[in-house]
Amino acid sequence: MRWTVDLNSDLGESFGSYVIGQDEAVLERITSANIACGFHAGDHNVLRRTVKMAAEKGIGLGAHPGLPDRLGFGRRYIQVDPDDVYNMTVYQLGAVKTFAALEGKELQHVKPHGAMYNMAAKDAEMAQAIAEAVAAVDPSLILFGLAGGELVKAGEKAGLQTAHEVFADRTYQPDGSLTPRSQPNCLIDDPQMAVDRVVRMVTKGKVTAVDGTDVPIQADTVCVHGDSPQALAFVEALREGLTGKGIHIQRIGKR
Amino acid sequence: MRWTVDLNSDLGESFGSYVIGQDEAVLERITSANIACGFHAGDHNVLRRTVKMAAEKGIGLGAHPGLPDRLGFGRRYIQVDPDDVYNMTVYQLGAVKTFAALEGKELQHVKPHGAMYNMAAKDAEMAQAIAEAVAAVDPSLILFGLAGGELVKAGEKAGLQTAHEVFADRTYQPDGSLTPRSQPNCLIDDPQMAVDRVVRMVTKGKVTAVDGTDVPIQADTVCVHGDSPQALAFVEALREGLTGKGIHIQRIGKR
Amino acid sequence: MRWTVDLNSDLGESFGSYVIGQDEAVLERITSANIACGFHAGDHNVLRRTVKMAAEKGIGLGAHPGLPDRLGFGRRYIQVDPDDVYNMTVYQLGAVKTFAALEGKELQHVKPHGAMYNMAAKDAEMAQAIAEAVAAVDPSLILFGLAGGELVKAGEKAGLQTAHEVFADRTYQPDGSLTPRSQPNCLIDDPQMAVDRVVRMVTKGKVTAVDGTDVPIQADTVCVHGDSPQALAFVEALREGLTGKGIHIQRIGKR
Amino acid sequence: MRWTVDLNSDLGESFGSYVIGQDEAVLERITSANIACGFHAGDHNVLRRTVKMAAEKGIGLGAHPGLPDRLGFGRRYIQVDPDDVYNMTVYQLGAVKTFAALEGKELQHVKPHGAMYNMAAKDAEMAQAIAEAVAAVDPSLILFGLAGGELVKAGEKAGLQTAHEVFADRTYQPDGSLTPRSQPNCLIDDPQMAVDRVVRMVTKGKVTAVDGTDVPIQADTVCVHGDSPQALAFVEALREGLTGKGIHIQRIGKR
Repeated sequence: MRWTVDLNSDLGESFGSYVIGQDEAVLERITSANIACGFHAGDHNVLRRTVKMAAEKGIGLGAHPGLPDRLGFGRRYIQVDPDDVYNMTVYQLGAVKTFAALEGKELQHVKPHGAMYNMAAKDAEMAQAIAEAVAAVDPSLILFGLAGGELVKAGEKAGLQTAHEVFADRTYQPDGSLTPRSQPNCLIDDPQMAVDRVVRMVTKGKVTAVDGTDVPIQADTVCVHGDSPQALAFVEALREGLTGKGIHIQRIGKR
Repeated sequence: MRWTVDLNSDLGESFGSYVIGQDEAVLERITSANIACGFHAGDHNVLRRTVKMAAEKGIGLGAHPGLPDRLGFGRRYIQVDPDDVYNMTVYQLGAVKTFAALEGKELQHVKPHGAMYNMAAKDAEMAQAIAEAVAAVDPSLILFGLAGGELVKAGEKAGLQTAHEVFADRTYQPDGSLTPRSQPNCLIDDPQMAVDRVVRMVTKGKVTAVDGTDVPIQADTVCVHGDSPQALAFVEALREGLTGKGIHIQRIGKR
Repeated sequence: MRWTVDLNSDLGESFGSYVIGQDEAVLERITSANIACGFHAGDHNVLRRTVKMAAEKGIGLGAHPGLPDRLGFGRRYIQVDPDDVYNMTVYQLGAVKTFAALEGKELQHVKPHGAMYNMAAKDAEMAQAIAEAVAAVDPSLILFGLAGGELVKAGEKAGLQTAHEVFADRTYQPDGSLTPRSQPNCLIDDPQMAVDRVVRMVTKGKVTAVDGTDVPIQADTVCVHGDSPQALAFVEALREGLTGKGIHIQRIGKR
Repeated sequence: MRWTVDLNSDLGESFGSYVIGQDEAVLERITSANIACGFHAGDHNVLRRTVKMAAEKGIGLGAHPGLPDRLGFGRRYIQVDPDDVYNMTVYQLGAVKTFAALEGKELQHVKPHGAMYNMAAKDAEMAQAIAEAVAAVDPSLILFGLAGGELVKAGEKAGLQTAHEVFADRTYQPDGSLTPRSQPNCLIDDPQMAVDRVVRMVTKGKVTAVDGTDVPIQADTVCVHGDSPQALAFVEALREGLTGKGIHIQRIGKR
């Protein structure tokens, strides 16, 4: 058995004079980049720079569409209907796809951001709107969604390749959902425990939920962050932990 | 000799709850649609609706990129550098092109809007940035610009098919430029005179400037408006005037 | 007994080149103006023009704060916390208040817009945030809210004068809330019936709910619209119907 | 003779999740705060927090209005007419003034930002629009502008108290204007030289221009930055340099 896993991170979230993240450093450590599209973060200049940088490093290029909400960084729930979500997904994919083409690359994947990601994980109708938009723009795209959530299900229904995403620093509920951030035990603070959990998710397909029970989980790609020195150090630790267990870190790649 | 001319108009400029224009009525009367891309006007929902409607009527689909300036409707000069203009053009083209693909159509052309159009007519560096962005996204696109201006020149240098655009309701200076709107004699008020001038531009390649001299001009496409009942009536009169003189009104079509 | 009622309408919702409403015509027919503040609609130029026009006609000047959501015209629910709502209310009131002072006028009232209005009618915490922001900016301001809803209750708790607002063209539930727009029987289509209902709300303090029962209601101010010729005609009919029954239409006025 | 000078800095420029500057550290070192108003930077939440923090430290509260251009951080020239500038100034002042009142404080001053500052320094009409807006909102406000520029002149004509602002890290032209940033010798790199120049501007009313000539200059307030550790260190050095020469650093204060 040869285990592989993809490491993805959100990039290109700067905007005008506002800088967020350490994109260059992160790009050295991941295999798939989720690039902000100018709705919740990013702009046309940041987008071009980020796509170019990720393309040069051979990272899998992904669109990271979000709700049109700069003020809330796309993290706030906004009441949107499926048509609206379909259209905003198409629009944002079109922009990123075109910048990728300028670098002679195809988009590899799509991962919705923030509130759009969370809505898509739970709300089947929203998930369907996103999956159909992705399939309409390019049926070869891989759709990233919360492991076991509605989005990956909708992606499969729409005929898309999907990737189940897991989180190293978050705890899970017995039903496989993430413990909401509003709850005290939502985070894994101990880096070694976080690494061990990811290794187990990848090799055993299991994660221990907050109530101590084992939950089946599919771990195709792991979400990592690069917004602090600690975050970068954790990605290093995770990479070492994974490779130490014989798990190959490689971009997910189209079927 | 068989004369032909294209009629183009700006569409898809509504935004959220804000409605501008009578897009359906205009689409019955033109051959090429310049569709707002969400920077100066339009949004992802309006864009989809407008592209669909224009595609169904067999109108030539064009991107109408503008400066990122909703408050000023893209009509205000903003200090932008060529890289920024290149990137904003790519971004906006990507969005429209992707919605066109959803309808099984290719984009036909690109016509910059407002201040971007005016800057591109006079400023060779700005014109080059736009032309190169268009060529990078799709070298088969037709670039619309002010007849005789810098944009069509830059388009030709970039290897693009170009279309020289003329205005029925505007007067011209001896150097072939439009009389600025700040001057009292900038407009042609008499609809019949406007029609006659367009006929002459198309068939003779000439227009009478404000000083009475004849100026050579190439009229591949005529810009018309649909924002009032009078505007629509004028388009009807123009169509009759042109066809009455044996001029075919047809979409410009790629080489 | 001398009956009086205030007629209020939303104004100043145009934005840049986008025009909404017939503000001048509406101002001839109402007694209190709810002026958009530049978050969901309006801008600094529209705001100045509208405040000036309303001030010259002696209309009660009101701030009409909304969620920061131009694309959704402030009508979409957005996840906001009380602090955010407090701050956005202060900000918007400050802007309108300052333009009013330029005309030598004080603000008379505050009426939240769209989703902010609806949230404030039902959510006590949101209502409190708005009421406290209004009281902090100027404790003499009158707070307009849905008759019987949480906002007027919060206003009273904050020591503010309040005005219970009723709708002529909407049906009511047995609990005094508006029938949601998603339901088929939400609107009163017959203008005469609408006028009769308002007369009864003002003079008897009662309205017939959708189930035929009578609901007590306080009608200090009636919301009217001016976005179509029919809307203006209805306001005329309402004015005639009210005055014909001896009800004085007058601005609400501070205690 | 007792020399005094004010130190001012731009604050409150964060926006949503985007953080710029080290506002708390800067506030320990300055006497007047120019607080962004939500047009080029800042938002209603940042504004409240910043006003509160500055008020608690007893810093002079100033509005820092800018062009409505988040993408360009208010640094790009945008074609605006005087009425528009007047209205955007009123709007932004109203917002800041109202947050100041919540803390029981009055605004002390107004300093335009970026492109608005530069336009106001050179363009008498623009300067007049700003000065008149400030005077209309509150005639006791102090107007900060480039030393010797059009804005302070317009402020005096409008009956306002003004403050001539100098820059420690910029070179001057023989006519007293700043050397444009596009030129290689625009900056003073040596911190000691920068301090010495400010001391001379304050005590002698003179600065050496790039051609070696002495230019008369009035230094009421010095602009300092806090966007890097070096910037903060420079402010410390400047404070020491000034006080070492017997110059009192104190907020400018209304007449």
